[in-house]
Amino acid sequence: MELKLVGKAHKDKTIIKVRDIEIGGNDFVIIAGPCAVESERQVMETAMAVKNAGARILRGGAFKPRTSPYAFQGLGEEGLKYLHHAGQATDMPVISEVMDPRDVEIVGKYVDIFQIGSRNMQNFSLLREIGKVKKPVLLKRGMAATIEEWLSAAEYIVLEGNKQVILCERGIRTFENYTRNTLDLMAVPIIKQLSHFPIIVDPSHGTGREELVASASKAAVAIGADGLMVEVHPCPNEALSDGRQSLDFSKFHKLCKNLFAMKDCLDTL
Amino acid sequence: MELKLVGKAHKDKTIIKVRDIEIGGNDFVIIAGPCAVESERQVMETAMAVKNAGARILRGGAFKPRTSPYAFQGLGEEGLKYLHHAGQATDMPVISEVMDPRDVEIVGKYVDIFQIGSRNMQNFSLLREIGKVKKPVLLKRGMAATIEEWLSAAEYIVLEGNKQVILCERGIRTFENYTRNTLDLMAVPIIKQLSHFPIIVDPSHGTGREELVASASKAAVAIGADGLMVEVHPCPNEALSDGRQSLDFSKFHKLCKNLFAMKDCLDTL
Amino acid sequence: MELKLVGKAHKDKTIIKVRDIEIGGNDFVIIAGPCAVESERQVMETAMAVKNAGARILRGGAFKPRTSPYAFQGLGEEGLKYLHHAGQATDMPVISEVMDPRDVEIVGKYVDIFQIGSRNMQNFSLLREIGKVKKPVLLKRGMAATIEEWLSAAEYIVLEGNKQVILCERGIRTFENYTRNTLDLMAVPIIKQLSHFPIIVDPSHGTGREELVASASKAAVAIGADGLMVEVHPCPNEALSDGRQSLDFSKFHKLCKNLFAMKDCLDTL
Amino acid sequence: MELKLVGKAHKDKTIIKVRDIEIGGNDFVIIAGPCAVESERQVMETAMAVKNAGARILRGGAFKPRTSPYAFQGLGEEGLKYLHHAGQATDMPVISEVMDPRDVEIVGKYVDIFQIGSRNMQNFSLLREIGKVKKPVLLKRGMAATIEEWLSAAEYIVLEGNKQVILCERGIRTFENYTRNTLDLMAVPIIKQLSHFPIIVDPSHGTGREELVASASKAAVAIGADGLMVEVHPCPNEALSDGRQSLDFSKFHKLCKNLFAMKDCLDTL
Repeated sequence: MELKLVGKAHKDKTIIKVRDIEIGGNDFVIIAGPCAVESERQVMETAMAVKNAGARILRGGAFKPRTSPYAFQGLGEEGLKYLHHAGQATDMPVISEVMDPRDVEIVGKYVDIFQIGSRNMQNFSLLREIGKVKKPVLLKRGMAATIEEWLSAAEYIVLEGNKQVILCERGIRTFENYTRNTLDLMAVPIIKQLSHFPIIVDPSHGTGREELVASASKAAVAIGADGLMVEVHPCPNEALSDGRQSLDFSKFHKLCKNLFAMKDCLDTL
Repeated sequence: MELKLVGKAHKDKTIIKVRDIEIGGNDFVIIAGPCAVESERQVMETAMAVKNAGARILRGGAFKPRTSPYAFQGLGEEGLKYLHHAGQATDMPVISEVMDPRDVEIVGKYVDIFQIGSRNMQNFSLLREIGKVKKPVLLKRGMAATIEEWLSAAEYIVLEGNKQVILCERGIRTFENYTRNTLDLMAVPIIKQLSHFPIIVDPSHGTGREELVASASKAAVAIGADGLMVEVHPCPNEALSDGRQSLDFSKFHKLCKNLFAMKDCLDTL
Repeated sequence: MELKLVGKAHKDKTIIKVRDIEIGGNDFVIIAGPCAVESERQVMETAMAVKNAGARILRGGAFKPRTSPYAFQGLGEEGLKYLHHAGQATDMPVISEVMDPRDVEIVGKYVDIFQIGSRNMQNFSLLREIGKVKKPVLLKRGMAATIEEWLSAAEYIVLEGNKQVILCERGIRTFENYTRNTLDLMAVPIIKQLSHFPIIVDPSHGTGREELVASASKAAVAIGADGLMVEVHPCPNEALSDGRQSLDFSKFHKLCKNLFAMKDCLDTL
Repeated sequence: MELKLVGKAHKDKTIIKVRDIEIGGNDFVIIAGPCAVESERQVMETAMAVKNAGARILRGGAFKPRTSPYAFQGLGEEGLKYLHHAGQATDMPVISEVMDPRDVEIVGKYVDIFQIGSRNMQNFSLLREIGKVKKPVLLKRGMAATIEEWLSAAEYIVLEGNKQVILCERGIRTFENYTRNTLDLMAVPIIKQLSHFPIIVDPSHGTGREELVASASKAAVAIGADGLMVEVHPCPNEALSDGRQSLDFSKFHKLCKNLFAMKDCLDTL
């Protein structure tokens, strides 16, 4: 697999800067928010709660890739406006998924970081389009993608000129069905060995169960991830998507407290 | 999983008509051609050879989804012109993959059947766009997709109005690496149970080895597939992609002869 | 992987003879019977029914490998006696699973063919013990075993002196859960390429659904398997194990009729 | 799945005591040693080195489950004697794998803890035999076993009377082949939720690469594992098995130092 631009040989380390936030540096950056933006109030409340807990970046889906066409598909541009507004009100950059190369421009009007989801990891038209923009992109690992295929997908983006890639491990599909996916935490040190780009972990999709998010997050800190992306909802039981894996505000607040304390003590070693 | 339009409850059986060819009827329809259109001559020679052997539809990739951006990406519209021309010269409908919703119109100018590849099975923007056209679409199973997820992807297409879907089993990703993928032939009777749409098998990607294509094809006939999609190349060793799994003209000719004889004798039972 | 004795280089073709039955020759040999021997009457009735339908060898489990210790574990030696008796009454050789190297002698008193199950494919002590006996052994593929690992397990048996190995493809474990396992039918031509031993297919475990057994069986005939091992029960709904994948007498009778007709017509080609 | 004796409902927490060592208590217990006992000197040197680094229990294989019969099979009882002697000289309990129910007595003469390997996780005869002994048993997860199947295997052991089970996560088989197995670290919190038995992690088999062992070990500490089992060899390049994943003495010494410091700082939180 040729990794001319993504590989270690090309560069040792890339730090992605979003305003005053550095991903891939010394900080452990937590991205949090609802799986899907459901209303102006829901995303605003969540933004204030996660900011208060220590999150640095706000996430929220407006264009949702759903297995069934009858499932909630997201609010589209209206959702992006609510997300953008909530980001401004809480002084946080925002990230949201783009699924269609034709939506790159409109999504770009509202987000600070583009997200490419697992199902689109090898949507090469989308990768090339994102490669032309000047904003960071978070590239999730495909659920059946090897680490080499994942890095090759990143190569498509960088080859077009966009050198701001953040990789995100979110679990792979295996025979084990107790968890929604099998979180491949070894991807973190492997990516650090093979590439110069930062890598974060998504413990929400990686487990599919809110009661396992804290454990997955602690392991992610210990194994050297540059951050996390966590799903948080004011009332998980009423969420229009992924409620089963979303944390409520108090659980997220407790999680952040523990993770920061853990990071501090590990930094002293 | 809601399958309102794709499910058996909606309809018992759908036959896709392409000119005088019926997919899902009594015929066993063989689609063949090169993985990628490499030159006007290569596709023309292949078209004549596969037509002569008994293929009814010509395949050829112009927009190629390649793991690496440094691999041959296909000839694009030029390739589609060569394919279209070869189809006209041999009086065969042609099929080619579309990877980008923005390319649906241009690809539609040249093809009789659209192909959506495994990597785009859950590219919902593309599915919706294809759902708006009035031509048949061949939807390949994603390499990590369950049968239910695959049918839900088809539901996206039909929901937009396109009722001409052909499903294509091409192997799933497993731990076994002797074959490129693990061909899940049971998908054929399962799709026949759950849906009214026809299903064909791709023995080339399903095995990744030309010496196994004949065996996979025979099993596909016996298990009730409505057809095959086979990769054929004038000189597999020189192919710009998938040479390892492509048949040369004489092997393809022999394969068709055996499959038709087999189909005839099974039809007498 | 060294396959000194199992590999093609060692020998071209091995036919396993059990009385007048040849496995690996021109016959398509059907092994059938209950998953587990439940009573003298159940196995006797089943033996008569499967014999009458065209089965040549009677199967029946006496020592059952069950995931839970609270599930029916089989009748042990008493079950072997019933099986042996039913085999005598119907003039069929019998096959049953041995799970423990200490049971090889006692099981050998009653069976004509030993079976080693998927869970014990790499139970090397058992493989070595079976390697010392002078009776044929049917070696099932492990649910997570590559084809090379499977043949290496056979090498253990042959290295001890037992040259009568029958391989049995019964499905591998994947993410797809509509079927109990994913039947890897390509294993048949691959084994024929790599080894001189015969290979049969188990459509019952390979699918886990009785309504799919006929389809899997037809594909097995077409792809060149040397036979089948099918679970049959007088009343599947009341079976103490694997009822969901067992055929009743009439369905099995119809299946055999179709498979023999299919084999005959394919043999004319 | 019935887990009458292994489940949380039966008991909240079990601590396994081996001399003064508690597995499942507050200590983080490191088990280390060579994959296979190769000579008296090799295991003695390794024992002294790992003891000095902080390991509490000595591991060493005498009966080796090897994919190929032509690979080094272990020294058998002679190896157990060397292991036992090295354990006495360094005042460490020893653990070694038993593969055959007939070997339980002889292996029991030399070891303090029995190990049941992945390939034998569903070797029910062996599980029952181990269930009758009065020594702790370390039960590795099968490479294709779900967590429920793994706990059901433990249920077989406890049902026979042996209440001293230590579970060991060692990676599952997936499509990803950069690592030897995919280490499913989420098994740790899941086992803590579902069962009262302790769980340790095997970072050597879990990754298959010595350069990844440290990362996997740190994640194991953070996620709450009760200990580790690590392969260490005086000269990994010359190891008769698993050299690629074995640490040399200095790397293991450094690893322990870091893990204990990490454990101490996490304990202050």
